[in-house]
Amino acid sequence: MPQRLKLIIAYNGAHFAGWQSQKHGNTVQDHLERAVRRISGGSVHVHGAGRTDAGVHALAQCAHVDVESDRFPSSRWTAALNATLPAHLRVLRCRRVTSEFHARFSATGKVYRYRIWSGPILPPLEFGRAWHVQRDLNFTVMKTAAAHFVGQHDFAGFAANRGHLERDTMRTIRSVKVHRRGFLWTLEFDGDGFLYRMVRLMVGALTNCAAGKINIDALLRRLERPDNHGARLAAPAAGLYLVRVRY
Amino acid sequence: MPQRLKLIIAYNGAHFAGWQSQKHGNTVQDHLERAVRRISGGSVHVHGAGRTDAGVHALAQCAHVDVESDRFPSSRWTAALNATLPAHLRVLRCRRVTSEFHARFSATGKVYRYRIWSGPILPPLEFGRAWHVQRDLNFTVMKTAAAHFVGQHDFAGFAANRGHLERDTMRTIRSVKVHRRGFLWTLEFDGDGFLYRMVRLMVGALTNCAAGKINIDALLRRLERPDNHGARLAAPAAGLYLVRVRY
Repeated sequence: MPQRLKLIIAYNGAHFAGWQSQKHGNTVQDHLERAVRRISGGSVHVHGAGRTDAGVHALAQCAHVDVESDRFPSSRWTAALNATLPAHLRVLRCRRVTSEFHARFSATGKVYRYRIWSGPILPPLEFGRAWHVQRDLNFTVMKTAAAHFVGQHDFAGFAANRGHLERDTMRTIRSVKVHRRGFLWTLEFDGDGFLYRMVRLMVGALTNCAAGKINIDALLRRLERPDNHGARLAAPAAGLYLVRVRY
Repeated sequence: MPQRLKLIIAYNGAHFAGWQSQKHGNTVQDHLERAVRRISGGSVHVHGAGRTDAGVHALAQCAHVDVESDRFPSSRWTAALNATLPAHLRVLRCRRVTSEFHARFSATGKVYRYRIWSGPILPPLEFGRAWHVQRDLNFTVMKTAAAHFVGQHDFAGFAANRGHLERDTMRTIRSVKVHRRGFLWTLEFDGDGFLYRMVRLMVGALTNCAAGKINIDALLRRLERPDNHGARLAAPAAGLYLVRVRY
């Protein structure tokens, strides 16, 4: 009798070629599937709540996987998986769920964080963990501009095309929190769902606003008339963190 | 007319084989000397305030170097050096000093921080940046034991032999701050000087106290009768940070 496990996973995205399985095998999904297979045997498919790009970090990504129930008590899965996974990828929690649970389709929301280092020199310990922006940025402009994303909008103007564009590009953002401490600026997006590269394209646009390269009206036009978009800036992957997935 | 430059440097110790120059060239000193030589030419020797081991991080290490003054205004050195240094090593500040200044001999004190992750699973973003201790640790015991290091003591019992042992092993520790936030425990040592591996040996002993493996009396005996030491635990390099050097 197979059982479904829900995994909460954290990783340092700098060490993986993103979430989705690839031939070279160095993706988060590949590592997880190999680790599960070593314990359960048989064919294993790990479903993630979302496919993070190479370089994107996760503090609490969520995934599910079906395994044979008899082989291993569910309480021992966390330690067993971590014993074979690389240190840059950890299973934080693991529990049994019913087969109705689906990491992607059951998700009701996600929280993403984006970190910007707005100072002249990026501290070495921030390398790969924040976007180093050396242009002068206006914090008040960024905060004001960010508030415009809150609510339900057609985010097609803030989505990248991954082979196909999602048919439904309406999304609701519950809140955007913008704060800073010294040179470190943090943006936290809480929404019901995010299109491909949506957070990075929003952060790119907000940074262009804060740098005075585009004005807030241009950003609003991209939200109102999503087809009409010109050159767009995607903030780099290294500053992005999947903070949690809501169910 | 040569001029002496004082450099404030930060690095992620995981990427270097320590401070001191080695044949393979991947040490902090080697990278700095190559970077300075590209600008100033000639023979270059960078003197650090202290030689950190492989894996040890620095938030504000200090060094000095003599260069030919005409080649380059001192205000442009920081950017020029960072343009060729790897991202895991940054010069934070650079200024001209008199030839009386010596990074090591002029130092009047140093601050070191040590980070311990006292929880069941080390978060991937903490890998290489904290010591993961999975034994149960008693915070009050650690804090109480740490207070005994404050003051002037003969720290020979908390020093490793680097070819030779320093003749004078008396050192004064001004303060040890111990605090925690969730699973992250931080110890900060402020002292007039530290013997080789002294912080890591102190943290190893404190952790053994907090784990109930040795009692505080044994730790005190090592301070009072430094010759009489048995097996000693050095906390790993990855948790150690040189926070600043005092002049």
